[in-house]
Amino acid sequence: MARIMLFFSDNTAAVHPAVWAALHAADQSDHGYDGDALSRRLDAAFTDLFGQPATALWVATGTAANCLALAAMVPPFGGIVCHREAHIETDEGGAPGFYTHGAKLILAEGAGAKITPHSIAAAIDPIRPDVHRVQPHAISITQSTEYGRVYTPAEVAAIAELARARGLWLHMDGARFGNAVAHLGCHPGEVVAGVDALSFGFVKNGGMGAEAIVLFGRAREAAMVDRIARMRKRAGHLQSKGRYLAAQILALLDNDLWLANARAANAAAAELAAAAGSRLMHPVEADEVFLTLAPAEAAALRAQGFDFYDWTAPAGAPGAARLVTAWNSDPAHVAALARAIAAL
Amino acid sequence: MARIMLFFSDNTAAVHPAVWAALHAADQSDHGYDGDALSRRLDAAFTDLFGQPATALWVATGTAANCLALAAMVPPFGGIVCHREAHIETDEGGAPGFYTHGAKLILAEGAGAKITPHSIAAAIDPIRPDVHRVQPHAISITQSTEYGRVYTPAEVAAIAELARARGLWLHMDGARFGNAVAHLGCHPGEVVAGVDALSFGFVKNGGMGAEAIVLFGRAREAAMVDRIARMRKRAGHLQSKGRYLAAQILALLDNDLWLANARAANAAAAELAAAAGSRLMHPVEADEVFLTLAPAEAAALRAQGFDFYDWTAPAGAPGAARLVTAWNSDPAHVAALARAIAAL
Amino acid sequence: MARIMLFFSDNTAAVHPAVWAALHAADQSDHGYDGDALSRRLDAAFTDLFGQPATALWVATGTAANCLALAAMVPPFGGIVCHREAHIETDEGGAPGFYTHGAKLILAEGAGAKITPHSIAAAIDPIRPDVHRVQPHAISITQSTEYGRVYTPAEVAAIAELARARGLWLHMDGARFGNAVAHLGCHPGEVVAGVDALSFGFVKNGGMGAEAIVLFGRAREAAMVDRIARMRKRAGHLQSKGRYLAAQILALLDNDLWLANARAANAAAAELAAAAGSRLMHPVEADEVFLTLAPAEAAALRAQGFDFYDWTAPAGAPGAARLVTAWNSDPAHVAALARAIAAL
Amino acid sequence: MARIMLFFSDNTAAVHPAVWAALHAADQSDHGYDGDALSRRLDAAFTDLFGQPATALWVATGTAANCLALAAMVPPFGGIVCHREAHIETDEGGAPGFYTHGAKLILAEGAGAKITPHSIAAAIDPIRPDVHRVQPHAISITQSTEYGRVYTPAEVAAIAELARARGLWLHMDGARFGNAVAHLGCHPGEVVAGVDALSFGFVKNGGMGAEAIVLFGRAREAAMVDRIARMRKRAGHLQSKGRYLAAQILALLDNDLWLANARAANAAAAELAAAAGSRLMHPVEADEVFLTLAPAEAAALRAQGFDFYDWTAPAGAPGAARLVTAWNSDPAHVAALARAIAAL
Repeated sequence: MARIMLFFSDNTAAVHPAVWAALHAADQSDHGYDGDALSRRLDAAFTDLFGQPATALWVATGTAANCLALAAMVPPFGGIVCHREAHIETDEGGAPGFYTHGAKLILAEGAGAKITPHSIAAAIDPIRPDVHRVQPHAISITQSTEYGRVYTPAEVAAIAELARARGLWLHMDGARFGNAVAHLGCHPGEVVAGVDALSFGFVKNGGMGAEAIVLFGRAREAAMVDRIARMRKRAGHLQSKGRYLAAQILALLDNDLWLANARAANAAAAELAAAAGSRLMHPVEADEVFLTLAPAEAAALRAQGFDFYDWTAPAGAPGAARLVTAWNSDPAHVAALARAIAAL
Repeated sequence: MARIMLFFSDNTAAVHPAVWAALHAADQSDHGYDGDALSRRLDAAFTDLFGQPATALWVATGTAANCLALAAMVPPFGGIVCHREAHIETDEGGAPGFYTHGAKLILAEGAGAKITPHSIAAAIDPIRPDVHRVQPHAISITQSTEYGRVYTPAEVAAIAELARARGLWLHMDGARFGNAVAHLGCHPGEVVAGVDALSFGFVKNGGMGAEAIVLFGRAREAAMVDRIARMRKRAGHLQSKGRYLAAQILALLDNDLWLANARAANAAAAELAAAAGSRLMHPVEADEVFLTLAPAEAAALRAQGFDFYDWTAPAGAPGAARLVTAWNSDPAHVAALARAIAAL
Repeated sequence: MARIMLFFSDNTAAVHPAVWAALHAADQSDHGYDGDALSRRLDAAFTDLFGQPATALWVATGTAANCLALAAMVPPFGGIVCHREAHIETDEGGAPGFYTHGAKLILAEGAGAKITPHSIAAAIDPIRPDVHRVQPHAISITQSTEYGRVYTPAEVAAIAELARARGLWLHMDGARFGNAVAHLGCHPGEVVAGVDALSFGFVKNGGMGAEAIVLFGRAREAAMVDRIARMRKRAGHLQSKGRYLAAQILALLDNDLWLANARAANAAAAELAAAAGSRLMHPVEADEVFLTLAPAEAAALRAQGFDFYDWTAPAGAPGAARLVTAWNSDPAHVAALARAIAAL
Repeated sequence: MARIMLFFSDNTAAVHPAVWAALHAADQSDHGYDGDALSRRLDAAFTDLFGQPATALWVATGTAANCLALAAMVPPFGGIVCHREAHIETDEGGAPGFYTHGAKLILAEGAGAKITPHSIAAAIDPIRPDVHRVQPHAISITQSTEYGRVYTPAEVAAIAELARARGLWLHMDGARFGNAVAHLGCHPGEVVAGVDALSFGFVKNGGMGAEAIVLFGRAREAAMVDRIARMRKRAGHLQSKGRYLAAQILALLDNDLWLANARAANAAAAELAAAAGSRLMHPVEADEVFLTLAPAEAAALRAQGFDFYDWTAPAGAPGAARLVTAWNSDPAHVAALARAIAAL
C-alpha cells in the first residue's frame, strides 16, 4: 500500500481529461512553432480572462517562463528583488543567472515568503546608485508563495505602486496562480493589477508540459515581445509542434477549468490543514500544508502508506513536513491522511 | 483543397499512435523530473540500441539537445567546427552562443552541407594556438544534413579520427538521425562510432516534444553527465513531468518504430525524387527533396493544392523549392505531387 | 645587431615624452575611478576635437573599447556585421562573444578588409526576420583597416546611410584612427560623420595603456552611457586611479600630438612602401606595409638585423611579410630597411 | 585647506617613486602582451616571495583579478561562498556574475567580514546536492577584510582544510594583502598556505594600475593557467604593453617595498585608531579605521580640512565614518587628524 498515497508535489500529477482531449484534437499538421491556429488564439484567450489586453507565449516549464520574463526586463548588470526563499533564488539551479547573463537576485524578507513594500524598500534603499552597486530593475513575487501564502490584490497593488515609483518592472511567478485566485475568490484581473509579466502555471494544475508568459501594459510593447520571442528560440524553448502546448493552455482556460482544478486542490489542502491544527507552520491558503511533525510521527504516517517531503523544522520543533495536494487528489486519500494526522 | 497537402516540414507532423498510447500509459503520478521509472529506463534502452554503453537525457527540442551537448564540451572561449549551413549556425537564433556563453562557430565547407576531414582541417589549421585566436574544441556534424545528405559510417569515422587526433569532441546533430540510418541500412551503432554526443531526434519522426541527448564513451563520465544535467535544469528544460518525454522516446525505440517511421518518410521522398529527376539539387538520401522550380511552376503546384517552402535557387536556375516528407505522409498526396512534378 | 630594428607592431612602442609628463603631473591623489579632474575633461576634449557633442570613457585596451561599445548596442540575440578579417572576428580571442553574451558576428567581404554598403547588404539581405535567424543590430568597421587601408569620409557616410536605413548602429574600431586621419588630411569630424561609437586608439600612437570609447549623437543618450559605464565596471575596467588613463589621452589630444605621431608613423611606412614597389599586397595608407617576400628574402632581411611578422602569402607568391612602423620609428632604421628591401 | 587631507581611500594614492623608475626603465619596445622580459620574470618573483611554486599573471584591476580567478574555478552553474559584505558581493557591480556567466554568490556570516569554517558550513550544509540547488565550487576570503580585519595563518588554514574536505577551491582577495602581512609579521607564504589563487593587490600600495593573479598548487596546472590566460584576453585585459604592468609589480616586490609601504599605511591607521579609542567599530589591523562619529563631529572634522566617507552607523550610534590611510599618508596630516579625533 505504501507509495500510492503521495503528497510530494502537485508537479507530477496526472493530466486532466480535457487536456488529453485537446491534445488529441490538435493532432494534425499545422504551421510550425507558434504559427498554428491554437497558438494564435492565446492572446485573445488571456485578454478575455484578465479583462485587459494581454500577450501570451507558451513555454514548457515555469523556470523558463520566469527567466524569460525576467531576462527581458533586467539587463545583465541589473538586479531582481525577490524573497529570500523565492523559487528563483533557491530552486531553479541558477537559471535566472543563466537567462539574465548574470543579474543579481536582491533578497528581501517577509513571513510566509511574502515580501512587502517595506521589506523591498529595506533591501534596495541602501543601494547607492553608483556603478559599484548592482541596481534593482525588477521585483518578482510568487503567487501563491513557496509557503502557500497568497498576496491579496491590495498587497499586489502596493508592491506595484512601489515598483512604478522606483521605475522597476513587476513580475509574478504564478506557478500556482490558480490556487491563489481560487483562494481569493476575486476576478483574476484584480490579482494582476500593476503586474507587467505573469508566469501562469498550468503544469501543476492539470497540464502536461505548458506554461504561459503573460504580458500586460508596457510589457506588451513590440520590442519587449520580440525580445522574449527571440530569447525563447535562443533558449531552445520554441517547440516546433507548439500547438500541443497551446492546446493544453486553451483547454485549461476553457470554462475556467484551471480555477476548478485549483479549487479542488485547495479544498484538499484545507481538509488537511483542519486536521493539522496547531501544527501548522503557515496559514494554508493554497494547496500546500507545512506542519511540524516529529520523526516518529512522520514514520507513523509513512507506515500507513502516505508519503511526502520532510521539511526544515522551525526552531523548537522536532521536525516538519510539507504536504501538497493536487487537482486530482483522491478524496479518500486526503480524508485518510487528515484522520491520520488528527490521530497523531 | 489548398493547404491540405503540406510538404513544409516533418517538424509539424502528427504524433504516432504508439506514442499516444505510451503517453496515456504514463498518466499517473510518479517521481518528478527525471526520477520516474520511464526516464530511468533511457540509458538501458539506448545502450541496447547502439550496442555500447550510453547515457541519455531527454529535452523538448533539438536546439536544446544540440546546445546542451555542445556547451558541456566547449568552454566559452572555445570554438565549434561546423558546416557553413549547419542548423546550429543558421537556424537556431544564436542558441549555441547563449548556451556556450559566447563560443564561436568555426565554419567549414562541403557539398550538401557535409564537412570532411579535409575541409575541417582547412578551417582549423590556420588557427594559431595563441590566446588571440579562438581554439576549436569540438566538431559538430548533422546526420542527415540540412540538405538531406547522409554521412556513411566511414565518413563519420574519418571525422572521428581527426577529432581524436586534434583533441576535439565530436557531436552529431541527429534531428533526422532515423532518416540517415534508414538510408544506410546498417546498425545504428556503426553510424555513431567515434561520436561523443548525439542529439537523437524524435519530434520529426513521430514524437510530440521529446529528443534525446545520447552520450558515449568519455562523454559518459560522471562530471560531464552532471554538467549537462545541471545545465538542463538551469536552462529550464528539466520538465517536472518528465515521464511524458521518456514515454515518447521509449515508444519510438520500441520495436524500432523510429526506423520504420524514417523508412516511410524516406520512401515518400524517394518517390518525389524520382519524379524530379534532373531538377534535383542534391541526391535525395533522407526525407528532404531540393529541386529547381521556376516561380510559375511553383505556382502551378500550389494551385493544385500542394504547399512547401521556396528555397534559394542555385546559380542559373529561375527558382527552387524544398519538399519535406514525414513518417505519415499520405501516399496519395505523395503520388499526386510526384505526378504533378513529372508533368511540369 | 639583430632584434634592434623591430617592425613587428606599433602596439609595443615606447611612450611619448609628453605622455610621461602628463602621467607625472597626475601623480597626486584625486577622486577615484573616473571622478577625477582629468577624467571629467574628456567629454569636452573630444567635443572640441570632433566639432560635435561627444561623450568619452577611458579603458585600458582596444578590445575592451570595441566590446563595451558593441555590447551596449547589440543584444545577446543580435548580430554585428564586420569584415571577415576584422580584428573583432579574428584576433580578440572571442571577446565580442563574451561582452555581448553570445551575439554573432555576421561576416562581410571587401578588398583590404574594407566593407561596403554592397557587401554589407549582401551579408544581411538574405536574413529572414524570423526568430530562427540572428538579426543584425550593428555594423563595425575598422579605420584604418587590418590591412592598412583607409575609409574615405564618403565611404563612411555611405555605410552610415545604410546603417540608418536599416536601423543599425555604426561602430568604428579606431585602433589606428590617427593613422587614418593623417592619411586623409581632413578634419577628424568628417571621418566619424554618422558613426555612433568610436574606439579611439592611443596605445599604438604614443600612449601606455589608455583608449577612449567616444560616443556621438543618439549613442550619447543617458541610458546608453549608463549601460557602458556599468558594463565597464562589471568588466573590471574601471581603474581606481583613472586619472592616469585620462592624462595619457589628454596629452595626446593636446596640440594634436596624436596626429603628429600618426603622421610620423605613416611617413615611415610610406618610405618602406616606396621601396617595396610591386611587392605591395595592399596600397599603403597608414602605418602597415604588407608585401610579398620569399623565405630567402625574409631571411636576408633578418640577417641584416630587421625583424617582423611573416604573413599569409597571396596565391602565387612564395611568401609574405607585414611591416609596421610607429610614431617613434627610428628614421635610420626605416631608411636602412627601405634600402634593404629595394636591394632584394 | 579643505580637501587636501583626504582619507577616502588608499586606492587613489600617488605612485611610489620606485615604481616610476621601473616604468621608465621599461620604456623601450619589447615583445607585446606578456611576452616581454619583465612579464616573464613574474613567476620566479612570486615563487621566491612565497617559497612555493607560483604562476602569476598581471591585470589592471582587483576586480579583474578576482573575477578571472573565480571564473576559472567555478562553472556558470556553480556557487562561490563569500562573506555577506565581501567586495565581490557588494562593490564590483556584478562583475563575478559577468565573468562566471551567472554563478551565484553564497553568503556567509562573520564579524568584521571574516568568515569561518563554521559560518561557511552553515551556509553550504543545507544545500541539497540535486540539480535544483546551486552547488558551491569555491570559497573566497578577503585578506585584509572589508573592515580591516586580518585572517591569521591558522584561520586561513582552517578554511583551507574545509575547502579541501568539501572539494572547493580557495580564493583570497588580497587587494590589501600587504597590509595583512604587515600586521601579521609572518612570512607571506604562511598567509597563503592552502590558498589556490590569490589576487595580490598593488594599486592600493604604491602601484599605478597593476595587480597580480597568483596561482599555487593544483591551480598552476596547465589547463587552469591556459583558461585564465584566454579569459584575460577575452575580457580585454591583455594589454599590449604589458611590460608596464609587470614593471610596477616587480618594483614593488623588489626588496619587499610592498611590505614597507603596507607597514607605513598600517602605522598611520594605528595612530588614528589610538585616538579613536572606544569609538572604534572594529579592531584596526590594517589601514582602515571604522569609527562612530556623530554628524556634528564629522562636520567638525571636515571643517578642519579632513575628508572621508561616511559609513553606516551601528545600532545605537548617531553616525559613523571610514578613514583609510595609504603608503604615502602625510605624517603631519595623520597626526593632525588623530589630534582632532581625540579632541572631539
